[in-house]
Amino acid sequence: MAEDRILIIGGVAAGPKVAARARRLLPDAEITVVDKGRYISYAGCGMPFYIDDQVGHFRELFSTGYGLPRDAEYFRNERGLNFLTRTEATAIDRVRKEVRLRNLETGQEETLGYDRLVLATGAESVMPRIEGTDLAGVFKFRDPGDAQAVKEYLETRNVQEAVVVGAGFIGIELAGALANLKLLTTVIEFQERILPLTFDSDMARLLEERLAAAHGIEFRTGERVIRLEGDDQGRVRRVHTDRGAYDAELVIVAVGVRPNVKLAREAGLAIGRTGAIAIDQHCRTSDPDIYACGDCVETTHRLTGEKVYSPFASAANRQGRVVADNLAGRPSIYRGVLGTAVLQAGSFNAGRTGLTEEQARKLGRQVVAGLAPQRDRTHYHPGSGMVILKVVADGESGRLLGVQGIGPGEVVKRIDVAAAVLHFGGTVNDLTELDLGYAPPFNTPVDPLQHTANALINKLEGIVETIGADELKAKLDANEDFVLLDVRLEKEAKYRKIDDPRRMLVTLSELRQRVEEVPRNKEIITICDIGVRSYEAYRLLRGAGFTKVRSVEGGMRTWPYGPASMF
Amino acid sequence: MAEDRILIIGGVAAGPKVAARARRLLPDAEITVVDKGRYISYAGCGMPFYIDDQVGHFRELFSTGYGLPRDAEYFRNERGLNFLTRTEATAIDRVRKEVRLRNLETGQEETLGYDRLVLATGAESVMPRIEGTDLAGVFKFRDPGDAQAVKEYLETRNVQEAVVVGAGFIGIELAGALANLKLLTTVIEFQERILPLTFDSDMARLLEERLAAAHGIEFRTGERVIRLEGDDQGRVRRVHTDRGAYDAELVIVAVGVRPNVKLAREAGLAIGRTGAIAIDQHCRTSDPDIYACGDCVETTHRLTGEKVYSPFASAANRQGRVVADNLAGRPSIYRGVLGTAVLQAGSFNAGRTGLTEEQARKLGRQVVAGLAPQRDRTHYHPGSGMVILKVVADGESGRLLGVQGIGPGEVVKRIDVAAAVLHFGGTVNDLTELDLGYAPPFNTPVDPLQHTANALINKLEGIVETIGADELKAKLDANEDFVLLDVRLEKEAKYRKIDDPRRMLVTLSELRQRVEEVPRNKEIITICDIGVRSYEAYRLLRGAGFTKVRSVEGGMRTWPYGPASMF
Repeated sequence: MAEDRILIIGGVAAGPKVAARARRLLPDAEITVVDKGRYISYAGCGMPFYIDDQVGHFRELFSTGYGLPRDAEYFRNERGLNFLTRTEATAIDRVRKEVRLRNLETGQEETLGYDRLVLATGAESVMPRIEGTDLAGVFKFRDPGDAQAVKEYLETRNVQEAVVVGAGFIGIELAGALANLKLLTTVIEFQERILPLTFDSDMARLLEERLAAAHGIEFRTGERVIRLEGDDQGRVRRVHTDRGAYDAELVIVAVGVRPNVKLAREAGLAIGRTGAIAIDQHCRTSDPDIYACGDCVETTHRLTGEKVYSPFASAANRQGRVVADNLAGRPSIYRGVLGTAVLQAGSFNAGRTGLTEEQARKLGRQVVAGLAPQRDRTHYHPGSGMVILKVVADGESGRLLGVQGIGPGEVVKRIDVAAAVLHFGGTVNDLTELDLGYAPPFNTPVDPLQHTANALINKLEGIVETIGADELKAKLDANEDFVLLDVRLEKEAKYRKIDDPRRMLVTLSELRQRVEEVPRNKEIITICDIGVRSYEAYRLLRGAGFTKVRSVEGGMRTWPYGPASMF
Repeated sequence: MAEDRILIIGGVAAGPKVAARARRLLPDAEITVVDKGRYISYAGCGMPFYIDDQVGHFRELFSTGYGLPRDAEYFRNERGLNFLTRTEATAIDRVRKEVRLRNLETGQEETLGYDRLVLATGAESVMPRIEGTDLAGVFKFRDPGDAQAVKEYLETRNVQEAVVVGAGFIGIELAGALANLKLLTTVIEFQERILPLTFDSDMARLLEERLAAAHGIEFRTGERVIRLEGDDQGRVRRVHTDRGAYDAELVIVAVGVRPNVKLAREAGLAIGRTGAIAIDQHCRTSDPDIYACGDCVETTHRLTGEKVYSPFASAANRQGRVVADNLAGRPSIYRGVLGTAVLQAGSFNAGRTGLTEEQARKLGRQVVAGLAPQRDRTHYHPGSGMVILKVVADGESGRLLGVQGIGPGEVVKRIDVAAAVLHFGGTVNDLTELDLGYAPPFNTPVDPLQHTANALINKLEGIVETIGADELKAKLDANEDFVLLDVRLEKEAKYRKIDDPRRMLVTLSELRQRVEEVPRNKEIITICDIGVRSYEAYRLLRGAGFTKVRSVEGGMRTWPYGPASMF
């Protein structure tokens, strides 16, 4: 194509990816990228780590690995791209194939023609309509300008207390960063738990408890922010909710993002049910000459077939590659997401892929789930840390539906492995058969993910019956008559125990000798530290003729009702 | 079964696993484990990390995560197992279903009947028949007694120089441990490279170069140890090879292990072609009442269908579970291995799964491979480290055949993900489509494994032609006429460069302007740091009409011919 003008609107993640690969595949195309911002091609996901100084310099968020700033000049020289910053695309004329542009510095307007257009207009922070969001010290957290503004505010003001509004991924990462800076940090979330859309309540609650215990973060879930109160200098000083008020000299609002679709909508392009731009498998919009990718599009959840809005940098990059391929006549396709997402906050990692138990149940599936704490590597290795994994599967087919994980240990590797199993539609049994790498610095001989899958299979096959923390709590509170048989060592049970008269301590190593002391006329609920000895005790008691026995899944490590667990 | 006597011979890894699960599934069985050693249920893989004090106490190698020693008493009390240590099984009478036992402490003999027998007799170190292996200071490294003996020798003798004989997994881990202790460490390997059976020569050489540069380990490959020389105290002081002699006050021989099959062979059980006990998918031997598992059996390579000897703790555990299931009437199967293996030595990680390029070629496959260095997470994250991954695939079907990785960064996660893809028979394209977790502490938006897969696809589709380090070296040495176009920044090329008159430095950002300076009548070989900018330059030159262009795969980071690379 002698006259191939490719115009890309958006220069953060998906846009530059399209541009760079299109340049390589189409040496003669005229490729222009426009972005309304001052910062382009930046590492948005790195910003929370800039706040707590893990990322040392602001410029690193915009630099290549070899130290060049990724600015318009870099893209012009190294990538052969025409990059217009501070340039807003205000309208698309699909008939004339032109885009109206306005230079935000000079106000100057111009019209640029295209043969093919790519929308990578991204997303913007949702800012709730409440009083006080315009106060000094109140920030959104979407682009590097926000990150730098927060950083400057922290460096120039005496901030002691901070509030993060919203307990999604960004909110939790930010809370971790602020807590790392030793601020008294409160997270306020309207939903009843943190990470409400992505984790099951049991897992979310465990992470919340750990973050609170280890980093002193205060969580206020089920509370709605009503108003931000300022001082007479116009600076925020208190956050009012429907249930209380919290002092804060810094407030970051991270309640979510919404796709930037105004341009697409006004141009008459199809918008999907999620509110993001609708695309096909080639990332093509309803106009065959217009592609879209990144945080402005909706995609398909590969397990449900449903359209979802899933704004992640990894998806943006893959979509960008697909768009470039298609621009160059290579029919690459993008199949969608599995909902994989990972985060680090303070000393904890968390991740998830596929469906949660709650999501799967809502879809009407017959769901089974297994949860287990394990060390991420051999317990004698100095780097070892706990992980709690939850495996969700289809109860009929055994097909894996999702995995969630939290802990100070290596969670993300297990999430990635699970994502690979989900990609192929594998079962829980497949999980157990994977030939994963074992050496003491990396793993246990039975990988925690496989251990959890084994535990789930044991449940499915009736080798063990378990009870979860919530049901046990309810039984305790309802004053039901049963024996809580704690089979740990006395030292383990000394401080961290469920302090209740129904609890009976018989160390597993004594249980065989003392089995006649265990009442045969009551339900026996066995408990230990992580659920392995309680399972052993379960089998022992069943073998000894006890019929009503259950083992507490995950043991004291997954007991969120205090005292705070060692993790 | 009222009278169900299960006898298990071997108490290290597979044996106790069988015993524990069999106990849970068969509460009424009489289960006995015999082991000739003093130590049972030990963490053999942890021993190298005990040598360099990463594992603080010897007892940790035998303890549960909650601090109990895993001795015979533990197994009796907690697991309900009869455990006989220092007891050797000397003969199996399959007709009478009896095993002859000898107590190695008292010399007393007895006969024990069984209904079902499990052989988990493990493996032993191969000790070459050379002069001097009986000298003080010469050790094998198979059981905790060996580890403790090495440790004591290090603590009581003034050891300054050490030799490790054998550059397999254990040898390399040990060399890392000894180098961590600041010993001058020499590894002597008969084959032409380290990790000869498990890594391709290009990857092995890169790891060798890194271990030498970072830890001062000396590698002597292609050398055969002839004789160990002692001093007049009977202590080793020098190692003689067919090519030299190396001072050493400590020598560890780690040339491999062989399965303990004497008992099985004498009992007339089928021994496989690999020399290990033959088993079926249920881990049953040629005698239906005798199972076998762990380091004494051979297994199936799932990609080739061939029988292989693959003695790994993870396989032992999975086989142990399968044996126990079958003992209990549950028809579990063990499908075999993918050859996954990982190690840590000094500050480097290494791992592999599936087939190497060389293995695949030997099988007559049409093989393609791609190699790429990348950071394991965002370059601005403080924990970031390099990994070099190599992806091997079938050239016709695109089916993934194997992945190898080395580097200070997180290699093993990528190996595990690749093992999952291999499990399902996935393709390189599947690799690129996986929805892996991305956040800056864990990954780059395009995971290094997916980046490497993309690079391989680019090669397959003719988007780039590459040249490897070896071929480039040969061209340089053969005084061929070409241009080595180094497109890095001047600062990058200052110290680490291929110092040759054919090298021409044109920074990528200047290349578009200066393209006419590049000779059109010569082959152009582009090179950069990791192969990304050289690929960009390749596409630029091709777009500018150059026809003979190639990009150096992996760039200077995979150039093993010095000067030593920063890793």
